[in-house]
Amino acid sequence: MADTATLILLRHGESEWNALNLFTGWVDVDLTDKGRAEAARAGELIKALDRQPDVLYTSLLRRAITTANIALDKADRHWIPVHRDWRLNERHYGALQGLNKADTKAKYGEEQFMAWRRSYDTPPPQIEAGSEFSQDSDPRYADIGGGPLTECLKDVVDRFVPHFTEVIVPDLRAGKTVIIAAHGNSLRALVKHLDGMSDEDVVGLNIPTGIPLRYDLDGDLKPTVPGGTYLDPEAAAAGAAAVAAQGAK
Amino acid sequence: MADTATLILLRHGESEWNALNLFTGWVDVDLTDKGRAEAARAGELIKALDRQPDVLYTSLLRRAITTANIALDKADRHWIPVHRDWRLNERHYGALQGLNKADTKAKYGEEQFMAWRRSYDTPPPQIEAGSEFSQDSDPRYADIGGGPLTECLKDVVDRFVPHFTEVIVPDLRAGKTVIIAAHGNSLRALVKHLDGMSDEDVVGLNIPTGIPLRYDLDGDLKPTVPGGTYLDPEAAAAGAAAVAAQGAK
Repeated sequence: MADTATLILLRHGESEWNALNLFTGWVDVDLTDKGRAEAARAGELIKALDRQPDVLYTSLLRRAITTANIALDKADRHWIPVHRDWRLNERHYGALQGLNKADTKAKYGEEQFMAWRRSYDTPPPQIEAGSEFSQDSDPRYADIGGGPLTECLKDVVDRFVPHFTEVIVPDLRAGKTVIIAAHGNSLRALVKHLDGMSDEDVVGLNIPTGIPLRYDLDGDLKPTVPGGTYLDPEAAAAGAAAVAAQGAK
Repeated sequence: MADTATLILLRHGESEWNALNLFTGWVDVDLTDKGRAEAARAGELIKALDRQPDVLYTSLLRRAITTANIALDKADRHWIPVHRDWRLNERHYGALQGLNKADTKAKYGEEQFMAWRRSYDTPPPQIEAGSEFSQDSDPRYADIGGGPLTECLKDVVDRFVPHFTEVIVPDLRAGKTVIIAAHGNSLRALVKHLDGMSDEDVVGLNIPTGIPLRYDLDGDLKPTVPGGTYLDPEAAAAGAAAVAAQGAK
């Protein structure tokens, strides 16, 4: 491969449920107009890079797919190959899916709320079969039995990192610039792996929506700059603070 | 495979250059607002089908890619696998790319104009290297040396039909419902193959923009209904008449 391989991580723009402060998980909500504008801005930032994406990986969720579609169209890279996989999906939020974050915090208390949101290995209660917000009859998950009923961040690491290593790394090794359009927790799982973060440290990591995060990786796939480089660092800092403050509203 | 395999053909919605009556070919123009509305309508028609698309094939051109993105999002099938290939591209229009159809007809006469547009095996003059509308420095065609310099419909048949047979037919044989988002002439090439049309008959075939055309294929991949079935037959008839009248403006 080249001296370095380039990986661009893109968390989807603001979704309808980000805006409503609801736990989303695998519920397939759309972007807001603000989210679409974030995606277009991400595309402009990508277009200005010295390395352009050669291949796209997305989750199976609309908010990541649409973000990638808008951004790559804006960057004139709409024509690159695409691979979609459920392993890039957001963390499944179990029985919390569809609940308001502030209501949940008020009902269960700060400690339980933060454990569900930010502990590494405590999953929320499982979603009930047939629930309005479950995926048990969703055709896209038929071959994995409808998918998980809940997940903690560790579960996301366990499903996404092996997929990254087996499926995405070969593209990086072949010298391709890879863009991954995914979610707060699936990208957090990947960043943990790339930067070798501890289980404790990763729970404090907040990835903002819609701002491309560039990693240049050396021959051992270690980041040349730990933590990568946001293409718009000022907006990224403000966005990360906003993510950290969720639930306060 | 099942008793029948289902193939859905979708010509992109109105493009900016359809609206301006220019020869487009491989020039990568965007959809108009009308084209986006056509794509959304196509998605609603697809959503009402008894068989939903399992896999998408597109050209490398924005107008087909965006049409598919909009239609599949509307049909809740945005998450299906995607394969893109230049062999599904529109016919390369050679030196005519970027020229107004009515001007071209006035300059060269009806006979020459119709030969370029509708004869089976007469390509227009080759586009000049470095021309504003050539693709010789387009990165998406780097591995095919920038692509052709001009094409007749026969050239499109010769590049697309083998690709269909080798790459797309296996999905149909596996029982998947396939959607192909492509262009007037690449779809014409495919319909010629599916329906066993003669070189003479295919030149009179006009495929309207943005209206899904469904083929159910038997075990020998022969259409159970010759010519397939438009999901909105009335709009398709009006659209085909509009295509046939191009150049008259």
